[in-house]
This record gives sequence, structure tokens and C-alpha cells, in this order.
Amino acid sequence: MARWEPNARGRLEDAALDLFTERGYDKTTIAEIAQRAGLTERTFFRHFADKREVLFGASNPLLGVLTDAVAAAPTDTPPLDAVAAALDSAAAVLQERRSYARRRQAVITANEELLERELVKLAVLAEGLATALRSRGASAAEAAVAAETGIALFRAAYASWLAADDTADLAECLHSAFATLRTLAR
Amino acid sequence: MARWEPNARGRLEDAALDLFTERGYDKTTIAEIAQRAGLTERTFFRHFADKREVLFGASNPLLGVLTDAVAAAPTDTPPLDAVAAALDSAAAVLQERRSYARRRQAVITANEELLERELVKLAVLAEGLATALRSRGASAAEAAVAAETGIALFRAAYASWLAADDTADLAECLHSAFATLRTLAR
Repeated sequence: MARWEPNARGRLEDAALDLFTERGYDKTTIAEIAQRAGLTERTFFRHFADKREVLFGASNPLLGVLTDAVAAAPTDTPPLDAVAAALDSAAAVLQERRSYARRRQAVITANEELLERELVKLAVLAEGLATALRSRGASAAEAAVAAETGIALFRAAYASWLAADDTADLAECLHSAFATLRTLAR
Repeated sequence: MARWEPNARGRLEDAALDLFTERGYDKTTIAEIAQRAGLTERTFFRHFADKREVLFGASNPLLGVLTDAVAAAPTDTPPLDAVAAALDSAAAVLQERRSYARRRQAVITANEELLERELVKLAVLAEGLATALRSRGASAAEAAVAAETGIALFRAAYASWLAADDTADLAECLHSAFATLRTLAR
């Protein structure tokens, strides 16, 4: 029987991020992550299928957050506003894990393979948003433009949020990016 | 001495795209590409460092096209308009190779590794545009938003261009995406 380990997942994430930061993602083994967390490799594999899953999860939880929020927006909400509201919901989820997000981003930026994976994740979010918008009656062109633009603004806001000091708020960074776009697009 | 081969590069590109389409990117060897083109492997390696370079080139030629065009825009051009003008220049380059672009996209979409590489290339273009805009005096926030939005609209326009019939014009698809955004952002 497996012993119950309090917050094993969080401890493994912490240990992995420490090691990725200290010696690089490629040079860190799962055995080392488990050891640093004071857990066994078997416990690691109960929580993650592989090393990359520590950074990316088994699924893309933001996808559900975004598409649910688009579906929940009042029917008369214009597409770009529905996307803005959805990104606000995602921002609330991410804001709670700012310290984790910052450490994670430093690891990802240092490794081309991880950076590619992150970009694919964002492209999947854009596709999900576009599909959700079309389900609400947006044209294919409007849906594509609103979804791609929303993810572009999210990228810009996320970068400025992580670069700013600890008091920064992701939702505020997002609102600021949308306001900048609305001014530039005038 | 190497024998001069007329249009060896184009023949190798054609042969590679045919084989990638027929049997998949991973299952195609460089020897097969050279053979199909009626050339030697040695000739292949005079033009490409590896198989992936047939699809992505050694450099990112659009980067120079985009940053030169931003630099050449009149000083009073607002950031998003400078990006739109730069993307028009890139569209002119791509328009001439529509058939190649379409076959290439089908190969890339079918292979996750190639799709990741393509997304990195687009992210590099966004960074290059942002840098070029900052050199013209745009704020970091304006530059990031205009560059990321421009590449987002390019992605949407490129997809609709490749999905449309042979008479489609990439510049028109881009103008239409910018017009949709300006309407949605009102």
C-alpha cells in the first residue's frame, strides 16, 4: 500500500523547479526530484507521467476555464469582449500562483523544447477560444481574429506581469494591454 | 569539382514536399529526396544542412523583410499601422509561392515537431517587430501589443489565405483581418 504523503504534488513541483533552476531542465532526473522532495520515484509517477508534466500538466486546465467563460458570457457580448472576460477568468487562476509562474517561466525560457511546448499550448487555447466563439454565432473570421488577438494580448500581459514587481496584478496587465490595443486600433 | 545542377534547390524542395506528403516527414530520408530530384546527397547538403531546413530555411528571411519595412515607415506612422505595412511586404514575398506554402503547411500541420518549430518562428517575428517598433520610439507596452497583435492577425489571415481558392490574395486577407479587428476593438 502506498503511504499517504501530505502535499506530495506541491513538494514535487517545488523540488523540480529548484533543480531545473539550479542545474537546468535536461540535466535533472526524476530520481533527483523525488529525492529532493523527500519522496520516492513511485510517488512521483503517481502524480506525473514524466518530467515535462511537472511544468505543463497532463491537460491544459486553462482551456476549460476560457471556453466555459466564453460560453457563460451574455449572448449580446461582442466577440473581443467575450475573449477579454474569459482571459480575466484565466488571470484569476494564474494570479494565485505568481511565484510558481515566475520560476516556471524562467525554466521554460531557458530551454527551446519547453518554449516550443508552451507556444503550442497557447495556440491550442486560441483554437479553443475561436471554436467557443463560433458556437455563439460569431463568423469564422471574427472568431479567428478575436481569439488570436486575445491570446496575443495575453502573451504581452503575461510577460509584463512576470517582469513587474510582486504587487503586479495579471488582470490589470490584461486590461492595460486591451486598452493599448483599443487606442492603437482607432 | 561539383557539377552545376540547374535549379537544384527548387528541385530538392519539390521532391521533398512530394515525399513528405506521400509518406510523411519522419519517414522520408535525405537519400530519397536526392534520388527523387535526380541529384546526389552531396548536392542536397550543399543547399540544406538537414531535412528540416527544406521547410524552414537556414534563417528566417521574413524577419529582415518585416524589420526593414518597420524601419522604412514614415516617422509619424502609428505602431499598428507600421506593423500592417510590414506584414504587407511579407505578404508580397509569400504570395509568389502560394502553391509551395500550401503544400508546406499541410506537411507542418501533420507533424507536431514541425508545428512547434513554426510557432517559434512566428514568436521570433513578433519579437523582431517589437524591437523595431521600440527603435522608432514606441513604448515597450505599445510595441509588444502592436507586434503580438500583428502576428496574431497574420496567423488568422495566412490560414484563411491557404484555405481559400487559388485566386485568394494574402494582402487582401490581411487587410480584411485588420479591418475585422478595428471593428471588434471599437
